[in-house]
Amino acid sequence: MGAKAALAGASGYAGGEILRLLLAHPEIEIGTLTAGSNAGRRLGELQPHLLPLADRVLVETTAENLAGHDVVFLALPHGQSGALATQLGADVLVVDCGADYRLRDGADWEEFYGSPHAGTWPYGLPELPGGRAALAGTRRIAVPGCYPTVSLLCTVPATAADLVEPDWVVVAASGTSGAGKAPKPHLLGSEVMGSASAYGVGGVHRHTPEIVQGLRAVTDAPVTVSFTPTLVPMSRGILATCTARLRPGVTAEAVRAAYTAAYADEGFVHLLAEGQWPATAMVYGANTAVVQVTVDERAGRVVVVGAIDNLAKGTAGGAIQSTNIALGLAEDLGLSKTGVAP
Amino acid sequence: MGAKAALAGASGYAGGEILRLLLAHPEIEIGTLTAGSNAGRRLGELQPHLLPLADRVLVETTAENLAGHDVVFLALPHGQSGALATQLGADVLVVDCGADYRLRDGADWEEFYGSPHAGTWPYGLPELPGGRAALAGTRRIAVPGCYPTVSLLCTVPATAADLVEPDWVVVAASGTSGAGKAPKPHLLGSEVMGSASAYGVGGVHRHTPEIVQGLRAVTDAPVTVSFTPTLVPMSRGILATCTARLRPGVTAEAVRAAYTAAYADEGFVHLLAEGQWPATAMVYGANTAVVQVTVDERAGRVVVVGAIDNLAKGTAGGAIQSTNIALGLAEDLGLSKTGVAP
Amino acid sequence: MGAKAALAGASGYAGGEILRLLLAHPEIEIGTLTAGSNAGRRLGELQPHLLPLADRVLVETTAENLAGHDVVFLALPHGQSGALATQLGADVLVVDCGADYRLRDGADWEEFYGSPHAGTWPYGLPELPGGRAALAGTRRIAVPGCYPTVSLLCTVPATAADLVEPDWVVVAASGTSGAGKAPKPHLLGSEVMGSASAYGVGGVHRHTPEIVQGLRAVTDAPVTVSFTPTLVPMSRGILATCTARLRPGVTAEAVRAAYTAAYADEGFVHLLAEGQWPATAMVYGANTAVVQVTVDERAGRVVVVGAIDNLAKGTAGGAIQSTNIALGLAEDLGLSKTGVAP
Amino acid sequence: MGAKAALAGASGYAGGEILRLLLAHPEIEIGTLTAGSNAGRRLGELQPHLLPLADRVLVETTAENLAGHDVVFLALPHGQSGALATQLGADVLVVDCGADYRLRDGADWEEFYGSPHAGTWPYGLPELPGGRAALAGTRRIAVPGCYPTVSLLCTVPATAADLVEPDWVVVAASGTSGAGKAPKPHLLGSEVMGSASAYGVGGVHRHTPEIVQGLRAVTDAPVTVSFTPTLVPMSRGILATCTARLRPGVTAEAVRAAYTAAYADEGFVHLLAEGQWPATAMVYGANTAVVQVTVDERAGRVVVVGAIDNLAKGTAGGAIQSTNIALGLAEDLGLSKTGVAP
Repeated sequence: MGAKAALAGASGYAGGEILRLLLAHPEIEIGTLTAGSNAGRRLGELQPHLLPLADRVLVETTAENLAGHDVVFLALPHGQSGALATQLGADVLVVDCGADYRLRDGADWEEFYGSPHAGTWPYGLPELPGGRAALAGTRRIAVPGCYPTVSLLCTVPATAADLVEPDWVVVAASGTSGAGKAPKPHLLGSEVMGSASAYGVGGVHRHTPEIVQGLRAVTDAPVTVSFTPTLVPMSRGILATCTARLRPGVTAEAVRAAYTAAYADEGFVHLLAEGQWPATAMVYGANTAVVQVTVDERAGRVVVVGAIDNLAKGTAGGAIQSTNIALGLAEDLGLSKTGVAP
Repeated sequence: MGAKAALAGASGYAGGEILRLLLAHPEIEIGTLTAGSNAGRRLGELQPHLLPLADRVLVETTAENLAGHDVVFLALPHGQSGALATQLGADVLVVDCGADYRLRDGADWEEFYGSPHAGTWPYGLPELPGGRAALAGTRRIAVPGCYPTVSLLCTVPATAADLVEPDWVVVAASGTSGAGKAPKPHLLGSEVMGSASAYGVGGVHRHTPEIVQGLRAVTDAPVTVSFTPTLVPMSRGILATCTARLRPGVTAEAVRAAYTAAYADEGFVHLLAEGQWPATAMVYGANTAVVQVTVDERAGRVVVVGAIDNLAKGTAGGAIQSTNIALGLAEDLGLSKTGVAP
Repeated sequence: MGAKAALAGASGYAGGEILRLLLAHPEIEIGTLTAGSNAGRRLGELQPHLLPLADRVLVETTAENLAGHDVVFLALPHGQSGALATQLGADVLVVDCGADYRLRDGADWEEFYGSPHAGTWPYGLPELPGGRAALAGTRRIAVPGCYPTVSLLCTVPATAADLVEPDWVVVAASGTSGAGKAPKPHLLGSEVMGSASAYGVGGVHRHTPEIVQGLRAVTDAPVTVSFTPTLVPMSRGILATCTARLRPGVTAEAVRAAYTAAYADEGFVHLLAEGQWPATAMVYGANTAVVQVTVDERAGRVVVVGAIDNLAKGTAGGAIQSTNIALGLAEDLGLSKTGVAP
Repeated sequence: MGAKAALAGASGYAGGEILRLLLAHPEIEIGTLTAGSNAGRRLGELQPHLLPLADRVLVETTAENLAGHDVVFLALPHGQSGALATQLGADVLVVDCGADYRLRDGADWEEFYGSPHAGTWPYGLPELPGGRAALAGTRRIAVPGCYPTVSLLCTVPATAADLVEPDWVVVAASGTSGAGKAPKPHLLGSEVMGSASAYGVGGVHRHTPEIVQGLRAVTDAPVTVSFTPTLVPMSRGILATCTARLRPGVTAEAVRAAYTAAYADEGFVHLLAEGQWPATAMVYGANTAVVQVTVDERAGRVVVVGAIDNLAKGTAGGAIQSTNIALGLAEDLGLSKTGVAP
């Protein structure tokens, strides 16, 4: 194996998914696994689906324990990655699944996160214009948020081609694993099964500035994004519905052509055949995003719908895809393009 | 009991919910129950949750079988109500849960339904401006579609008060019962559990003109609606997220005041306390709509979220509420304001 | 209204269901609502589906706050009811939804609960032989556990009629609300959706001695019960599958006759038509148990399957049914026989 | 690649899962895909999660179309495999996921399936005593039923070691995909979400004789099995709870030793650490069975619980595992030991 990886935060959902994927990765070996309050416990108690690693014991999350690896994945609550990352060697590839290094604008960071800005790292969404170039050879990667991943894949092509007013409305239905594994009453199975709910409404969700940032990179027009996340009764998956007003004279053909061009050569973004609409089941466990686009002539709008697995393409899969690029490996190593369905 | 009711279409979901609610209604007696291909069967085989009616036998859906009742509920596929309704006496209260008589504009009907327009009946959404007056004493009621019910309750107050540009974006997450009981592969439990999907995207869903019609009734400004329905893994409930651009200078206070004023005296629309957002579980089995509104200053938009039970307030409950009004009964007879949760 | 009721434990699932049902009860008025750590909060924050009570404020759970009511419902963790009950007047009807007063044998209590036995109160399962007589006029009621409710309704008729060896195997699939509202990692929606799991296996679940006790009351033969609870992805409902070896020569007709006789006059136990098997959806939100029985000739066994709503007939509904009896009211006041489905 | 495989029945759930697994198999190439009424359609319409195969077109299920492959997987309704199999060459490895060739006793077949018996092929459950030997080099494989797979893995070790009376009670909770993709009303999402139900009760399910057959192969004592399947709200997974009376004097240690010995060297059966109980989420998408065993001293019984993914280890995964053995490949090629969770 070419590289040895440590993982900080092995007991959470993002950490578990990184391990699930690394178990199938032919070029990355799984090294030290760390945790916070779960240090000292067997992984089998915490992530019982990772049967081949059941007897691994977690150690404390410290820079010392993470040393000696080629890659360090950080799957920690935001705010914790920043401090830890500074203690890891510059030659080590550090891949942060948290938010700390995603935003370029420190003011945005402080407004939405209420703490000092740690900095900015290359953004791990290779399918964006210039995305792959920013990742080649890097030793620091900021893995995008799950909502921004799918939202940007849906909104960037039309925005970059100047086909729409960049005043996007994004409404996303997410599975509950995006909210993490810390037990809170509103995340209990009894509460979420049979119920759809809205949260973080009115532009206050922390992923909002990240979506805006991604759009600003591809247009000079003023960008606004109305983003509303909702919680629906499933463990995994995000379905994002995105709409913006068409610029005058833009045809449905031009819109479709923009999306076809954007994703024709992308292995992990699949523009569906016309007439077929995304379902999160199509990409359950897969690193693929499925996307469809249409024009509503009466309303004068483009409507783009995308689906991803929030833990796979939206977190751990995206992390490994970017890691493969940074390490100079084939981009799809260890990543499935096939959903687990039904 | 004051009135005797027949039901055409007792084996489907809308019909079953009408019966569930009528079983608790103190002034309406359940008379003849009809069905199409299920005529001759015991209700207990088809609607096993309606235990007190288990031994009732369904008869064929004919005008003769429906005669002799004070109220006739039609819970039939669209297109079937029109023909049948003409054969029912003018003094009988006919309550159509189908689409046939909802639209005022025949051209809209023909465009979206592809068949001749049957006509227009009073629209059964009492909470709309003028809604109750149109229903008092009527002998014909067109029960609104489930999506229009919640969408109009969310969008009418801001539109009527001219606080927004009436260019609404509505994205709704629906439970599967809205798609009915006819078995289709994409509605199988194996397909819908664990998956969120979009359908009818691009302004083609038949409920779109119904939402537009409701908004046009309260504004002279040109109305557009971008409506996207999605299917999420639950049996009941719709969560609608609605957003429109604020007119210049409109404050958050003015917006909230409009919604407070609209629903202060409504028993079945509950504007939640500030900071609390709708969840469909709050209204499971209830005739209540829960609504919340906020302003996104950065995006310059109002965001309104509403939740209903699509079978209750969205169909059968709304039907009975309007029936109560038409019959001069207390509007809330037989209707619960309490959700079944968790 | 004839009676005024206080509720201790208004923020949990059992307490919420008691309130949901009392809101529809014509003879019981809802008085003081108490809570532990949630005292001081609006009910609307904690039980948002109880919309008519949204502005009620919870007070602390003390005997003083509970005084001055005709009925006190206790919906508290086991161990807390015992101490509180002794401070409530002997003329007050105290209805304990916890386990403290269910078991007659103090040794059983100590073995399974590991604390001193509080005592024994009349057992709130009217459908058991002698059940109603024990409740008439009582001022203390021990509401049965949810699993024992359905298990005893399934197993008592065949046992009492001596048709089987009373060596029962009971495997029950429960919704997650039976585990309560205290957030624990294994009860997160992300964990329970898409997964069925076993727990409390090997005769260690605390409801086991309660089932055994109910069977010992109807037979002199030695009773054993192998009880296995499982958790399945739904909020409400228990499906219990119960089997025992037929005594030699017992016919399928004799078995069916025993169940028909047992439940012919019971309003809340519905023996399904032959060939139809229970589903928990049939009784969602209802106080009804549905039961079916058959004989497996090859295996020489009777198989009985029953379904209840664990929060309704299994807790709050059963509590109110017994309360009605104790107060001399019609037994079915405020209780639905109709499930909310689909 | 060493072998080329055709698949008959590519539009159903079993067929889809075979393709999902073969896409990750390094030594088997995917050849012709056939269907019945779906012949002529793109796979992308029918199995949209199999994105890499989206443009494959299905052809009709005929022996001619299936010719020219090293392996033919049959994923057809029972009764159809028998006729087709006789037309396939004796040197072709034919792997039947249907029931036609599972039972050794023609009388059992006729009683439970009501049609002439096609014959008996080597049984594809390598973990049974002698299971691997029967499969080595074979050119015909009968893939076990999903319920028998998990039931036999749970019950055979104690039976073979004569630790229990072989009078087993098996109650299994299954996801809905086991019922297939043909749309039926009771399998609609609206019906299955939020509901657990029993079916095929009383020893009439067709998998019953298959479980009995597997147990008879390891004991001379008379075998009876009371098998009850239930449907719970999830797409995939079976949780089986199995209990039998301990023979006098048998200790818990002896029981555990038997299971430890049986599965110590098995890669796809994982005896959990003591105290941990199976959940189907542990094996979602994986070819692994997780098993746990305990003794209930009071009831005098062993209780064994097992979980599998019905489509993976229970059908397609088991099929490929046996195929690997028959072809002389490493047994675990293309098969995951890791569940997709949460």
